[in-house]
Amino acid sequence: MISIDDGLARFLGEELDEISGIFESQLEGEHDIINQICRHVESYRGKMLRPSLVLLSALASGVEEMSASHRIIAAVVEMIHMATLVHDDVLDEADTRRGGRTVNDLHGNEMAVMLGDYLISNAFHLCSSINRPEVNLLLGSTTNTLCEGELIQLGNRQNLNIGEDTYFTIVEKKTASLIGASCRLGAALTNDDEDTASRLERFGVASGIAFQITDDLLDLVGEEDVVGKSVGRDLEKGKLTLPIIYALGDADADFHEHLVKMIQSRDLVGLRCAVNESGAIDQAMKKAASLVEQAKSELQDLPETPARNLLAVLADGILERRY
Amino acid sequence: MISIDDGLARFLGEELDEISGIFESQLEGEHDIINQICRHVESYRGKMLRPSLVLLSALASGVEEMSASHRIIAAVVEMIHMATLVHDDVLDEADTRRGGRTVNDLHGNEMAVMLGDYLISNAFHLCSSINRPEVNLLLGSTTNTLCEGELIQLGNRQNLNIGEDTYFTIVEKKTASLIGASCRLGAALTNDDEDTASRLERFGVASGIAFQITDDLLDLVGEEDVVGKSVGRDLEKGKLTLPIIYALGDADADFHEHLVKMIQSRDLVGLRCAVNESGAIDQAMKKAASLVEQAKSELQDLPETPARNLLAVLADGILERRY
Repeated sequence: MISIDDGLARFLGEELDEISGIFESQLEGEHDIINQICRHVESYRGKMLRPSLVLLSALASGVEEMSASHRIIAAVVEMIHMATLVHDDVLDEADTRRGGRTVNDLHGNEMAVMLGDYLISNAFHLCSSINRPEVNLLLGSTTNTLCEGELIQLGNRQNLNIGEDTYFTIVEKKTASLIGASCRLGAALTNDDEDTASRLERFGVASGIAFQITDDLLDLVGEEDVVGKSVGRDLEKGKLTLPIIYALGDADADFHEHLVKMIQSRDLVGLRCAVNESGAIDQAMKKAASLVEQAKSELQDLPETPARNLLAVLADGILERRY
Repeated sequence: MISIDDGLARFLGEELDEISGIFESQLEGEHDIINQICRHVESYRGKMLRPSLVLLSALASGVEEMSASHRIIAAVVEMIHMATLVHDDVLDEADTRRGGRTVNDLHGNEMAVMLGDYLISNAFHLCSSINRPEVNLLLGSTTNTLCEGELIQLGNRQNLNIGEDTYFTIVEKKTASLIGASCRLGAALTNDDEDTASRLERFGVASGIAFQITDDLLDLVGEEDVVGKSVGRDLEKGKLTLPIIYALGDADADFHEHLVKMIQSRDLVGLRCAVNESGAIDQAMKKAASLVEQAKSELQDLPETPARNLLAVLADGILERRY
């Protein structure tokens, strides 16, 4: 177990406060109704994983002092992430997020759709303020990829024959691409060392896929009051996730039929039990663990710094998630 | 009546074809499911008003030859507009657009939400490709404004006390801002003449407000098979538009009560008739006409060119709209 450096933890806390300030002041305007719902979205911000990755990747790339651009881009990736949460909750008809009510539940789907658009738009506007067109291009391409992942996932709802490959395509696009870009940008805003930026991006992509696997596992086996958001939504929405894909793939004809029946009747408790007994949950966790190892191997050739060590700790933490 | 210059019409047609090609190739990818729904959205493109305004404003500013940047930005403003149509149809639960089925009606709200996001993201990505950060900033700020307009409108649904001021704030933000920006950018990508860019932007803003007034009038008094999209949606969704705001404002207590009853019971035919007899439809048309005059006055000091004349013809055409 690598311990977290105290100085680094304090530094990150201070930087994340500044980044929160940038986030909030970008969205603050003259219209009360907009300010109100933006403040509600700010309550979704929990771990601020993506801004932390921008900062840690900058530190791991040898940044001397965090620049305004680092902080702005950290706020931008968080804003993009918030937009996806708001629209995801509409898509999933979710009513709970971080223990509070979702925007769609509080203000209706229409407000949630427009608020998500407002967040995306503000993210791009804020991004443009650093005067680095190549960063706009990279983040524009990342959000294209992210939307592609969501669209492919939607197109495969209720598809009982979805394979592992399609699952990983979806997850890499919809989740890992933005996490990878956050790591790359932390490095790219620091210096021109493309090798380090690529390594950190690969670290982010592998970690991001592992993160989504554990997220999907929590939706299947987690308890709502611990997870802090609605569970069982994937089954409800006909999204087949990795443990179920594994279970279906390894099942004999009888068990396959049994699984399909539970999927079709949205029997979360039965499915959870059957998939667990088949060993497919362990198998999905093993896949996540191997991705975490792959992610950490990308860090090996970077100089040993507290930031590099914390990135490794964060990757390990993916496997310990309970919420 | 000013006639449209033949050479200009041919030139515009050729340029708009090129711009359509940029639009389509930006969205074309390796995933059939995404290509399919993007092609459906392309069928929404009708008059290509916003790209035409980029081109005409460039010509009215004395462009020698249309640059790649002009064409790319023309495709970008159309893509932003398409994104707003797709999300508007979700908000309005509309099933018909340009005589065809809407994305939400064909593929569900979820697909329409994500497709709108994909269009916004691609618009910003394409915009970043011209390497002009100030254009990204301007368009980012424009889409912020556009979303603000939609959010304020949503916050005022079912508000029977909405005044003329709030109506114009909403319309200027949600519709006129992008039309104004299209005109400004056509000029700004041509040369550094800020005076001309400002005049053209003001032309676009005034025309855009007039355009939205007539759009709202068509929703109240138009016939669905002529308009080509669902009508009566504003009433259905509790959006009070200018003729109704005028009618309510001028009504005595009895007529006010009568109007409110029809609004609350969603009685489109009765409301249309009462508002018409009160003179409020004429009053709204007069407001649109005065905005068109204001728009055209912004063109007066520009050199007389076929493009300037066509801008004036387009502004006059707003008052003749039947669809």
